[in-house]
Amino acid sequence: MQNGQILEVTAGEGYLVELSPGLISDAPGLAGRLSALLGLTDPSVRAVIVTDSNVGPLYAGKVEAALEATRPGASAGVITIPAGEESKTPLELVRVLEAMASLRLTRKDAVIALGGGVVGDLAGLAAALYMRGIRCLQMPTSLLAMVDSSVGGKTAVDLEAGKNLMGVFSQPVGVLIDPEVLRTLPAREISCGWGEIIKYAGLDGDVLAAVRTELGPCRSGIAPLPSVGLIARSIDVKRRIVSEDEKESGARRLLNLGHTAGHAVETASRYALSHGASVAIGMHILTKALVKEGKLPRAMLEDLEELLRQAGLPSSIPPELLARADLDFSIDALLAVASHDKKSAGSGVNLVLPIAPGRAEVRKVSWEDFRAMLETGL
Amino acid sequence: MQNGQILEVTAGEGYLVELSPGLISDAPGLAGRLSALLGLTDPSVRAVIVTDSNVGPLYAGKVEAALEATRPGASAGVITIPAGEESKTPLELVRVLEAMASLRLTRKDAVIALGGGVVGDLAGLAAALYMRGIRCLQMPTSLLAMVDSSVGGKTAVDLEAGKNLMGVFSQPVGVLIDPEVLRTLPAREISCGWGEIIKYAGLDGDVLAAVRTELGPCRSGIAPLPSVGLIARSIDVKRRIVSEDEKESGARRLLNLGHTAGHAVETASRYALSHGASVAIGMHILTKALVKEGKLPRAMLEDLEELLRQAGLPSSIPPELLARADLDFSIDALLAVASHDKKSAGSGVNLVLPIAPGRAEVRKVSWEDFRAMLETGL
Ligand SMILES: NC(=O)c1ccc[n+]([C@@H]2O[C@H](COP(=O)([O-])OP(=O)(O)OC[C@H]3O[C@@H](n4cnc5c(N)ncnc54)[C@H](O)[C@@H]3O)[C@@H](O)[C@H]2O)c1
Ligand SMILES: NC(=O)c1ccc[n+]([C@@H]2O[C@H](COP(=O)([O-])OP(=O)(O)OC[C@H]3O[C@@H](n4cnc5c(N)ncnc54)[C@H](O)[C@@H]3O)[C@@H](O)[C@H]2O)c1
Repeated sequence: MQNGQILEVTAGEGYLVELSPGLISDAPGLAGRLSALLGLTDPSVRAVIVTDSNVGPLYAGKVEAALEATRPGASAGVITIPAGEESKTPLELVRVLEAMASLRLTRKDAVIALGGGVVGDLAGLAAALYMRGIRCLQMPTSLLAMVDSSVGGKTAVDLEAGKNLMGVFSQPVGVLIDPEVLRTLPAREISCGWGEIIKYAGLDGDVLAAVRTELGPCRSGIAPLPSVGLIARSIDVKRRIVSEDEKESGARRLLNLGHTAGHAVETASRYALSHGASVAIGMHILTKALVKEGKLPRAMLEDLEELLRQAGLPSSIPPELLARADLDFSIDALLAVASHDKKSAGSGVNLVLPIAPGRAEVRKVSWEDFRAMLETGL
Repeated sequence: MQNGQILEVTAGEGYLVELSPGLISDAPGLAGRLSALLGLTDPSVRAVIVTDSNVGPLYAGKVEAALEATRPGASAGVITIPAGEESKTPLELVRVLEAMASLRLTRKDAVIALGGGVVGDLAGLAAALYMRGIRCLQMPTSLLAMVDSSVGGKTAVDLEAGKNLMGVFSQPVGVLIDPEVLRTLPAREISCGWGEIIKYAGLDGDVLAAVRTELGPCRSGIAPLPSVGLIARSIDVKRRIVSEDEKESGARRLLNLGHTAGHAVETASRYALSHGASVAIGMHILTKALVKEGKLPRAMLEDLEELLRQAGLPSSIPPELLARADLDFSIDALLAVASHDKKSAGSGVNLVLPIAPGRAEVRKVSWEDFRAMLETGL
């Protein structure tokens, strides 16, 4: 194994994020990590793998084999949910919990969340709720999950009324990342992950420089895989912010750069837009509005547009979606969603505003001003 | 208001349990408490009342009026679940969460859990999960909820696989108790609450003395209402133990006196036995087994039987249940349930054993020894 990196998150009881190319195919190496992280030398401790119907067939067998290599019986089995955001529901959550109960998991046992953000969020919540909380190890397999959702302890499922409305903060006992698994990730999902990396670029000058270097040579509009170093740098931004503000009362709000407008657009598209594409559009709306108001140099907008294009992400709502009669992207519709957002705060909304390349800050903006920004930025 | 008592719980961020006879009918007094506890002077804060179909019609109007007295619009409405343990399900939980979302509750808003243990456990969990956690005020209306479930932050709903398997630890912001509402509580439920009070008597000599005094004159087998002083003393035992051990890793296990065997009997009865009756039977099984083994004086068993009779509780599984062909109270069936209990610990079970009047201790007992105790104690 080369290029291994270890980062420490100090939220909760503290835990490590390990980034090791090839880890999942290295049975003894993986077995060692799992045994240490989950305490599998205790013969009464088992781990269950929760995964989805795409990731399971590719990688669950390897993780299960590594578990069994630590001790026969250390694997309690594999629970598979159908792939996709449609599975991030209370119904699927309860199915997973009932499956955990039929495997007779006890309080000493653990969950391994093996998959993208959907599996991570749902399995993390299932672990937090089973018998009032058992341990969870995150093994993110999508780029978005590696750089974002697996770190920080936000878990959730969606309600009918909106995304991520049912959840808890619950930190994992560790995060194990093998970037090699990104080789099987579809291009659209790689772009999605770049959306979050470009978000970090808006918060950190070093990430911005690295993003420019890696996306720069890319003229095709098909996003390359980011380097292990850039994945680590991205996690490092998230790690620093989360360690400072575990429950999102202050600094953590910075991570919502592009998310308020983005989430409104995502919801209005009825999830035809991916999360990454929506965040991209959200960042673009704010940057464009600030440029038009003369608060940011035009070059910042052009730079953002270039990076998004190179990452295979849209800058604005695609015409084919705007043309759909069943979707409403009017300012009123977007504001209605935003006012119901977890981030809304009564008389206004806490927005993350770009202020310079690689820098942003949280500001409370009145609903009127936010409306004006949507009007000029969309 | 007379006889008001205030107890402090130091779990979580710390909170107060206030016991005030007449509080619910004293609109200005209640309004003052609610405003202070929930911060209702902030005009963007609202509270939703979660209650059940028995308690709602009796008391929700009063609580809502008190909320509105603090500030018009301070009440976000009332969400009512059907009364009974059958409602303590993930399905009902999600209904409550969706209802909270359609009332457009934000992170600043709060839940008031007004009802027995079912409402308290479910509404407490809904509050802990809504947008990853909003505040919850407990207003217990059953005796069991007053002396036990409203204090300590255990929240849960039941899975198909077993009771309370889906939940979190989440402390309320306060507990407001008006013992006057016990006047409308059915006799069977009063007995149920006595089950938990007699449990505390097994852990605390002062409670034992008070229980003897209050149940002593009672020859009818219909339980009297406990005094406000005894309710406070009972809460005090729970408060002390929970403050010491919030997440049940040590001392808190003492609160499971009678619960391991009791829970097995309760499950085997398919909940035909109430929780209180089951705990009563559970305490009796252990005490009887220890007396037969010569480890406790026979007087302790006789004393327990007398108290249970006076409280309207059974000492053993009623003959009409034993006679039912669809129920299996065999030792094997009971052990199967116990081995799947949250309290089971691999090679054995952590049992709370009476060691003297008003004293008990936690001991890890092998499955074999537990089987033997069930055989002699049942
Ligand atoms: N918890 C947080 O802090 C946080 C942050 C951001 C996003 N999220 C959540 O994350 C979710 C999105 O995550 P996502 O983009 O990973 O979605 P996802 O989990 O649906 O994964 C995307 C797709 O890629 C597949 N996949 C994943 N890894 C693969 C691999 N190595 N090879 C082949 N296929 C693979 C999945 O099966 C799925 O079809 C959303 O629900 C969002 O709300 C959470
Ligand atoms: N969280 C904990 O620490 C904890 C501890 C013990 C028990 N519990 C849970 O508590 C539940 C049992 O609680 P419970 O016994 O209060 O059951 P419950 O909530 O079902 O209440 C019993 C009955 O009394 C009615 N009722 C309540 N208050 C009333 C009043 N003032 N007037 C008239 N009717 C009233 C209810 O509608 C219900 O029909 C179980 O689910 C158990 O698991 C939790």
